[in-house]
Amino acid sequence: MTVTVSGTEAPQTPPETAGSGAGEAETVGSATGGAAGEVADLARRARVASRSLATASRGVKDAALRGIARALGERTPAILAANERDLARAQEQGTPGAILDRLTLTPARIAGMASALGTIADLPDPVGEVVRGSTLPNGLVMRQVRVPLGVVAVVYEARPNVTVDAAGLALKSGNAVLLRGSSSAAESNATLVGVIQDALVQAGLPADAVLGVPATSRETTRALLGARGLVDVVIPRGGAGLIRTVVAEARVPVIETGVGNCHVYVDAGADVAKAVAILLDSKTSRPSVCNAAETVLVHVGIADEFWPVALPALAAAGVRVHADPRVLAHVRATGVLAVEATAEDWDTEYLSMDIAAGTVDSLDEAIGHIRAHSTGHTEAIVTESLGAARRFVAEVDAAAVMVNASTRFTDGGELGFGAEIGISTQKLHARGPLGLSELTTTTFVVTGDGHVRG
Amino acid sequence: MTVTVSGTEAPQTPPETAGSGAGEAETVGSATGGAAGEVADLARRARVASRSLATASRGVKDAALRGIARALGERTPAILAANERDLARAQEQGTPGAILDRLTLTPARIAGMASALGTIADLPDPVGEVVRGSTLPNGLVMRQVRVPLGVVAVVYEARPNVTVDAAGLALKSGNAVLLRGSSSAAESNATLVGVIQDALVQAGLPADAVLGVPATSRETTRALLGARGLVDVVIPRGGAGLIRTVVAEARVPVIETGVGNCHVYVDAGADVAKAVAILLDSKTSRPSVCNAAETVLVHVGIADEFWPVALPALAAAGVRVHADPRVLAHVRATGVLAVEATAEDWDTEYLSMDIAAGTVDSLDEAIGHIRAHSTGHTEAIVTESLGAARRFVAEVDAAAVMVNASTRFTDGGELGFGAEIGISTQKLHARGPLGLSELTTTTFVVTGDGHVRG
Repeated sequence: MTVTVSGTEAPQTPPETAGSGAGEAETVGSATGGAAGEVADLARRARVASRSLATASRGVKDAALRGIARALGERTPAILAANERDLARAQEQGTPGAILDRLTLTPARIAGMASALGTIADLPDPVGEVVRGSTLPNGLVMRQVRVPLGVVAVVYEARPNVTVDAAGLALKSGNAVLLRGSSSAAESNATLVGVIQDALVQAGLPADAVLGVPATSRETTRALLGARGLVDVVIPRGGAGLIRTVVAEARVPVIETGVGNCHVYVDAGADVAKAVAILLDSKTSRPSVCNAAETVLVHVGIADEFWPVALPALAAAGVRVHADPRVLAHVRATGVLAVEATAEDWDTEYLSMDIAAGTVDSLDEAIGHIRAHSTGHTEAIVTESLGAARRFVAEVDAAAVMVNASTRFTDGGELGFGAEIGISTQKLHARGPLGLSELTTTTFVVTGDGHVRG
Repeated sequence: MTVTVSGTEAPQTPPETAGSGAGEAETVGSATGGAAGEVADLARRARVASRSLATASRGVKDAALRGIARALGERTPAILAANERDLARAQEQGTPGAILDRLTLTPARIAGMASALGTIADLPDPVGEVVRGSTLPNGLVMRQVRVPLGVVAVVYEARPNVTVDAAGLALKSGNAVLLRGSSSAAESNATLVGVIQDALVQAGLPADAVLGVPATSRETTRALLGARGLVDVVIPRGGAGLIRTVVAEARVPVIETGVGNCHVYVDAGADVAKAVAILLDSKTSRPSVCNAAETVLVHVGIADEFWPVALPALAAAGVRVHADPRVLAHVRATGVLAVEATAEDWDTEYLSMDIAAGTVDSLDEAIGHIRAHSTGHTEAIVTESLGAARRFVAEVDAAAVMVNASTRFTDGGELGFGAEIGISTQKLHARGPLGLSELTTTTFVVTGDGHVRG
């Protein structure tokens, strides 16, 4: 099974972290006492705990993971009670149904979290893997070895299962973790962290390896972002607003995840049946996720064959098409419902049953459009031409490029990584699904016998 | 031979990039026209050029590298003339001799730059390397392939050879590069960039693949740091002041390089002869570089054997010892010159013939001291104990850990990478020497035949 830490979930921007003004950024570094002091104290405790984690054997870590899984089962009633208090408060505040759904825990969902921990325990330990090694001409023995990053902070939104999944992935990769969830899930998260800490201690690991950061104000997020030297990386799990805030304010390294304005390009001479199937899967199999398609571009040379099949299929699936003028002509011919595309549609990540539909006169125009509007997540081409596929792969700039396959395959589970903490859309460190290896760094260990350079 | 882009050179902080106030940071994003507009325009041109670079074959890139090398030889007189103008201006401004030396070009130094390009041409092309690949259970063919980052910006200090080395490494790895050198080297750099561009065009590559960024004001550095979406990574090559500025102001990803407060720990039961040789090499073989040792910690159990040999050797090499009270006692016994260590000494990167010398009562204390004062560059232990070596390697947190070897071995050339653009002290993306692979990212290329997830 796949363990996904809201990696492909629809983002939402929590009020306490969203859209901070640029002018406030400089308070991060200089904040003292209060939230910043509290967070620095938590980070210091996590840093101390990270030393034990870094040297813990796989056996100890896996035993802890399975212990947490057991404890989640045993303490399900307390977790559900805390979650009900969060839900009651959210309902009072008029929280939308979709967010309430994400916030809701059930016995089945808790069992799913426990099962995900078992999956993580079954994966190989990334720590200690020798990435490269050789004996140098002078006899020095060089090994580049994977080691934990140290202290990882995850800033995320409503879903409380992220608390457990992120803790599990951090633990397996030997990192201490600071979990800054949404205030809407505060009681659920606090209870889950308590369950995890008790199980850690039972396994002989420090409770401080997994610490919750209070979601009392956006200052606690800021303090994490400014905790240079205490926090090794911040991973924001959420929508574009959260990610913008994090990038603007962070003084610690960040791994960006998740915004996907994914395109499906249907080339001239594509197999229409394959193209329609790929488009429907990319758009409708789970529209709220970042690897769902948001724009379809169709080569003018296949439009007359493609649209009479695709438009009714999209309509039947409940997709609203935002059509350019040439697509609109087909819309009129087939009689399905659609709206006229505006300039903004080409940059919109709908995360809903909407798709922008455009016409291009050439492969070049398709590549140019995608380069202009892509968020660098996943881009797909449907083609029978080897040359077109080759050019598309070479010239599109994205974490993943699909040839005759759905955009939805950009997923750690689908690609065989077993677990993911998100999908990186940045180019440094990790691009694409973030697995356990991506939560590590490396050290060069060089062993000699009195060697000097002279 | 080794190609080093000032990777291990002593840093210096140029006035135009140093110590910007926190309150100024927010002007980066909102700067318009002037320097910011000019830099954005350069970055856009580089981005267009980067598309050609990304798909250029190794043959074309290597021909361009060899063409640049030839042109450097042919146009040596013009390069020297420009350099003389820079030197004259620097002398008028009373620039210190050490910096004048770095700024100075000679026919031999230009020949060295050309030869370094030949070395880069001989290295394998990182672009296109398949990092991992498999056929998935559903028949999808997955390959993770190295691709260029896109547009790389290098911000560096006086040495004009960085212009050529950075251009060569960027070209080989398929990246366009924006070179923001020091104003003190403005004429040398402009001439070198001109030589490079002419050779690029002759090789059929776009001149805009290598662009100089005017060093007219610190605003041009700021504009680079704020050019999100246009610049894929900024690599600062310089001292702690430059790196702090970059980290505080950057809205684009950064790879930090270079600050090294490196320790040599002499364990109880170490071989004294090896320990003295390693200490001397680590400190004195090139004191101005980031992999030089700055502190020696000696286990109390070996101090009586170690110091009577080490102190006279250090004194003979011209090293000034900043000694803790217990080391001072040995200093008095041997009659060499030393000063009393202050609290600041433990955090000072001298980059000179100075070393802090401390005494520890245990391996634990040594590890604790190093964890508290390390900059995460290189830490060394001299020991005959396998257990001590194992613990030191596991518990010290640095890009490189040396066992019975000089700290000076943290170097791309020494470790067999052939070329380096610096030594990363950060944990994300790349840690330790940055070679050609570290100037790339990856794309997942997934090929199917109409595959959908459903």
